[in-house]
Amino acid sequence: MMETVKLKWGPDGLIPAIAQDVRTGQVLMQAYMNEEALHLTLETGTAWYWSRSRQCLWQKGGTSGHYQRVREVRTDCDGDSLLLLVEQEGVACHEGTYSCFTRRVDGSPRAMIGTAFWPIQPDETVPYD
Amino acid sequence: MMETVKLKWGPDGLIPAIAQDVRTGQVLMQAYMNEEALHLTLETGTAWYWSRSRQCLWQKGGTSGHYQRVREVRTDCDGDSLLLLVEQEGVACHEGTYSCFTRRVDGSPRAMIGTAFWPIQPDETVPYD
Repeated sequence: MMETVKLKWGPDGLIPAIAQDVRTGQVLMQAYMNEEALHLTLETGTAWYWSRSRQCLWQKGGTSGHYQRVREVRTDCDGDSLLLLVEQEGVACHEGTYSCFTRRVDGSPRAMIGTAFWPIQPDETVPYD
Repeated sequence: MMETVKLKWGPDGLIPAIAQDVRTGQVLMQAYMNEEALHLTLETGTAWYWSRSRQCLWQKGGTSGHYQRVREVRTDCDGDSLLLLVEQEGVACHEGTYSCFTRRVDGSPRAMIGTAFWPIQPDETVPYD
């Protein structure tokens, strides 16, 4: 049997949480959880996060109706990151796109647009410096 | 045209970076980048990260040979998270598994093992408190 790991909360009490569409595999968003958010997520079966900007718990979809039904929560080998496999209601992004990851970071000489899933428009680029 | 966002580095100069298999969609690992790691990643086409524990840059695969060929780097609506679409050589995890996310966080009354991609063994669970 594989040795279990304990979750490692950061010095701020948070752990990064990645939400991935359980049906398509698309990465939808990355936010943070504190222990209570994880507890609420496991308890209710819908995703709860900790907002660093507002310093409060928030239920994804609580105001928008765009809930994430959590089908599984995984952690990695170090126990310092979470992966949520979710069924997304509506869209994940407040900008109206299904995923929050809609912009390509500019400057990659080897970027091969079109090889990736879920293509984005080539003008949605972000300078990285 | 969509308004671009600038990348937001944390107070520690880091940004979370999620590596996802560009072919299967499997989430492989989550690590951190500083600005130089991102620069090196875009420059070389292979993933570089910043190790918080060792406080140094490291090229994924530099010692193991398990390089990540980076096909695209995306950011999210807030510009505070990165998504790398990669071709993974060998395995992503130092434990020998393809993905680092092999453990299920315990305690979910609604966990539906089997609905997710990339099933894991049900005894690979992690207590969350």
